[in-house]
Amino acid sequence: MPLPVGSRAVTTGSPADPQDPLDAEDLRDRVHKALDDLIARQSDVLDGVSDELAPLMDAVGDLLRGGKRLRPAFCYWGWRGAGGDDSSGIVAVAAALELFQAAALIHDDVMDGSDTRRGQPSVHRRFAALHRGNRWLGPSEDFGVAGAILAGDLCLSWCDEMYAGSGLPAERLAAGRAVFDRMRTELMCGQYLDMLEQVLASTSVQRARHVILYKSAKYSVQQPLLLGGTLAGAPDELLRTYDDYGRALGEAFQLRDDVLGVFGDPDATGKPAGDDLREGKRTVLVAVTLERCSPAEAAAVRRSLGDPHLDAGGVERLREVMTGCGALVVVESMIDDLSAKALHSLESADVAEPAREVLEQLVAAATARSQ
Amino acid sequence: MPLPVGSRAVTTGSPADPQDPLDAEDLRDRVHKALDDLIARQSDVLDGVSDELAPLMDAVGDLLRGGKRLRPAFCYWGWRGAGGDDSSGIVAVAAALELFQAAALIHDDVMDGSDTRRGQPSVHRRFAALHRGNRWLGPSEDFGVAGAILAGDLCLSWCDEMYAGSGLPAERLAAGRAVFDRMRTELMCGQYLDMLEQVLASTSVQRARHVILYKSAKYSVQQPLLLGGTLAGAPDELLRTYDDYGRALGEAFQLRDDVLGVFGDPDATGKPAGDDLREGKRTVLVAVTLERCSPAEAAAVRRSLGDPHLDAGGVERLREVMTGCGALVVVESMIDDLSAKALHSLESADVAEPAREVLEQLVAAATARSQ
Repeated sequence: MPLPVGSRAVTTGSPADPQDPLDAEDLRDRVHKALDDLIARQSDVLDGVSDELAPLMDAVGDLLRGGKRLRPAFCYWGWRGAGGDDSSGIVAVAAALELFQAAALIHDDVMDGSDTRRGQPSVHRRFAALHRGNRWLGPSEDFGVAGAILAGDLCLSWCDEMYAGSGLPAERLAAGRAVFDRMRTELMCGQYLDMLEQVLASTSVQRARHVILYKSAKYSVQQPLLLGGTLAGAPDELLRTYDDYGRALGEAFQLRDDVLGVFGDPDATGKPAGDDLREGKRTVLVAVTLERCSPAEAAAVRRSLGDPHLDAGGVERLREVMTGCGALVVVESMIDDLSAKALHSLESADVAEPAREVLEQLVAAATARSQ
Repeated sequence: MPLPVGSRAVTTGSPADPQDPLDAEDLRDRVHKALDDLIARQSDVLDGVSDELAPLMDAVGDLLRGGKRLRPAFCYWGWRGAGGDDSSGIVAVAAALELFQAAALIHDDVMDGSDTRRGQPSVHRRFAALHRGNRWLGPSEDFGVAGAILAGDLCLSWCDEMYAGSGLPAERLAAGRAVFDRMRTELMCGQYLDMLEQVLASTSVQRARHVILYKSAKYSVQQPLLLGGTLAGAPDELLRTYDDYGRALGEAFQLRDDVLGVFGDPDATGKPAGDDLREGKRTVLVAVTLERCSPAEAAAVRRSLGDPHLDAGGVERLREVMTGCGALVVVESMIDDLSAKALHSLESADVAEPAREVLEQLVAAATARSQ
């Protein structure tokens, strides 16, 4: 059941091309290869238990094949920016972050009831379909949720296994633990707060910004970068730079994600248009809209948000309100300001090249209007 | 929000009383104290994010307060039996197993739709009640499931954090990883297979025994013991003894749990009488019953298994079938045989005292008819 490694040659030991902001194909391929190896090892373990576990392995493997490898890039370049040598160890740690992300996505989709992820059925839908297709007993939805809980749990364990088995020196891994452990705990906190915002139908911009810090900004940008830096033994001043850059860019990244969740092209986002609206996500974009639109519009927004049957016309009307009241412009300007702040934090910092240049380019890549 | 440490004095550095098979109060208190410390540390992290996270911390803390600390006992005595010194490091690793167990229970209760755990509402019911009590928006059940998924994820992360931060030497922890990692992966495999047995309405004794090996026997007895032994650098021969003992006793332990799930006293099990039957669990006891009872009885068993509305009379009728056809006697005799096998494996083995004596006593403790 191992994933195919991909057709491009895997380069090891050479610094990656700084012209491609996601370090492009080189780092991406190496992360992919590290994940392939993990999947192959775990497939052996699962095969040793029972051949009936193939759907579990396949669900995880297929999900891991997708993704932009943004978190590995921040981790790797955080390491390199602190003077760390290119090595397979840091690539393994970077790849471990993709397993963490996979766990978060699988469980998040259960919690949000999302049908789609990365252009495929979400993992719980996939297991529900397996159940239905086999005409097994009981409710297919329950089987789907159970399968997804276990697939996410496997990813969480494997993330840790990959971190500990990366091959980096034990004392460096021990130093990185403070970031690695906090990242995992804080993301789960952020997910809980996100869920709370939805059931409270919160409309506060300040609360929404607090939530995205924990449910996304930190683990998407700031903590991967700090992890790479800490593993490489970065001095405090550089870690402060990473902290500032990561927090600003992490927030900008999530604001862009929120905008794409309403206005994005489904082919690019891998999710149906308006899915965030149907799920009732309490984003900063929604909060700013409710602050700026007319009372009649606000009532309409409140009615539509979280309506699972919201159709294309309903999504379009919400888009018009968000554009018409200026909320979209406000959020775009927040993204611009945060991106500028992230770039600014790099200016006077002592970040080793080519990492500094790559981190500059990652600002644009993480906030691009089409992705 | 830290748990109270408990009223008994905490002894460190002294070997525990071999007269009490669970090492009794001494080890139990020290595990409890290690968990208290973890909870206190994590409470600080969560408080730093938001005071709205208190329910998440409380749910985990309350669950961790319960339990017989069986897995920590096997881990600790596996270490001591291999000549490991009494130390806070091995107690921390032993306590980490309770976090793993908590994660497994929380997620398992979601998957099984169980209402009760350790005499309290299960974690997902607890979050559903919080939602209902606050009259928050949306379905309370969905909020309950989401809260439980996150609480379980936190326990999984904290288990790993506690293992890595136990203070045992890095090279010992690296050696133990092979057991620690496999334990986590195999349990999730076992849970998946368990779920599969239910939706397939399997009636095979052989399949049921394969499932309990992975969903319970290994992570309850065998792997904790092997983990302790491996961490202490046990020779291969001793690890083979642990393997034999652990596999036999682990299976006996789960068979006892299955019997208690049907015949046990709810005050002692912490679950309502007949809960396993309502959940449709495909236990060895059920499989043996279906092999031995009359066709009419088998039809009645099949109808009742998994019926969420099965009442006390229905539970009693199933008990009568299980007793009448001799299935209960068969399972009790399997427990006896496996217990004897576990004891036998210790006879010629070179297990350091007092661990050998304690491991002998743990056979009875783990398979006691009332617990």
